[in-house]
Amino acid sequence: MNAIFHALGDVTRRGMLSELSGGEKTVGQLAEPFDMSLAAASKHIKVLEKAGLIRREVRWRTRVCHLNPGPLASAHAWLREYERFWTGRLDALEQLLREEDAHQPPSREGDDP
Amino acid sequence: MNAIFHALGDVTRRGMLSELSGGEKTVGQLAEPFDMSLAAASKHIKVLEKAGLIRREVRWRTRVCHLNPGPLASAHAWLREYERFWTGRLDALEQLLREEDAHQPPSREGDDP
Repeated sequence: MNAIFHALGDVTRRGMLSELSGGEKTVGQLAEPFDMSLAAASKHIKVLEKAGLIRREVRWRTRVCHLNPGPLASAHAWLREYERFWTGRLDALEQLLREEDAHQPPSREGDDP
Repeated sequence: MNAIFHALGDVTRRGMLSELSGGEKTVGQLAEPFDMSLAAASKHIKVLEKAGLIRREVRWRTRVCHLNPGPLASAHAWLREYERFWTGRLDALEQLLREEDAHQPPSREGDDP
C-alpha cells in the first residue's frame, strides 16, 4: 500500500495513468506529453511498475505499457473505509435540518447559538 | 493531490489516521502506539496536517488532532475515475460467460446452474 500511494503522489505519474486509461502505450509514447527526458520518464514508469499500477509486455516486438487496475482498486477500498466520515457529515447535517424543521417554534423568537 | 497521496504512502501515517477514526487525540496519545520518538511522530503528524488530512485545535487548553475527511474524499473520487477498469473486467467476464451459455450446444441437457 505504501508503494501504491507513493506512486500516486506525483502529478506526472498520475498523468501517465490517465494516458494509459486511453489504451496501452510504448515508453516513448507515454513520455511524449511530459516535458522531461526519456530517462526521467523511465524513472516514473519504473515507480508505477514497482507499485504494480502498470505492466510492461512485449507486443509485436515492442514493449508496451498498460494499466493494471488491481492496486488502484486496493487503494480505493482502503479509502472507502473512511467514507462514513465524509458521508456521515452530510447525514448529520440532514438530520439536524430535519429536527430543526420538526421543532420549528410558532413565532420566530430568540437567537439560538 | 500530491500531498494527500504522499501522506498516505506511509504505514505510520495511515495508522495515525486509523487511530483518529476512533476519535480525536492529543499528539502524545497519537504517537503512543507507534515505536518511535515523539519528534519522529510529530514529523508524521505535520505531513498529515500539511496534506489537510488532520486538523489541530485547542480544546480545554490542550491541542488535539482530529481527522479531516475532505482530502480522503478527494483521493477516493480521483480513484473512482478508474473504477471501470476493475469493474469492467468483471463485466467482460460476465458477458463472456453469458455468450458461452447462449451458444451452448443443444446436446448438453439439464445442466442449468
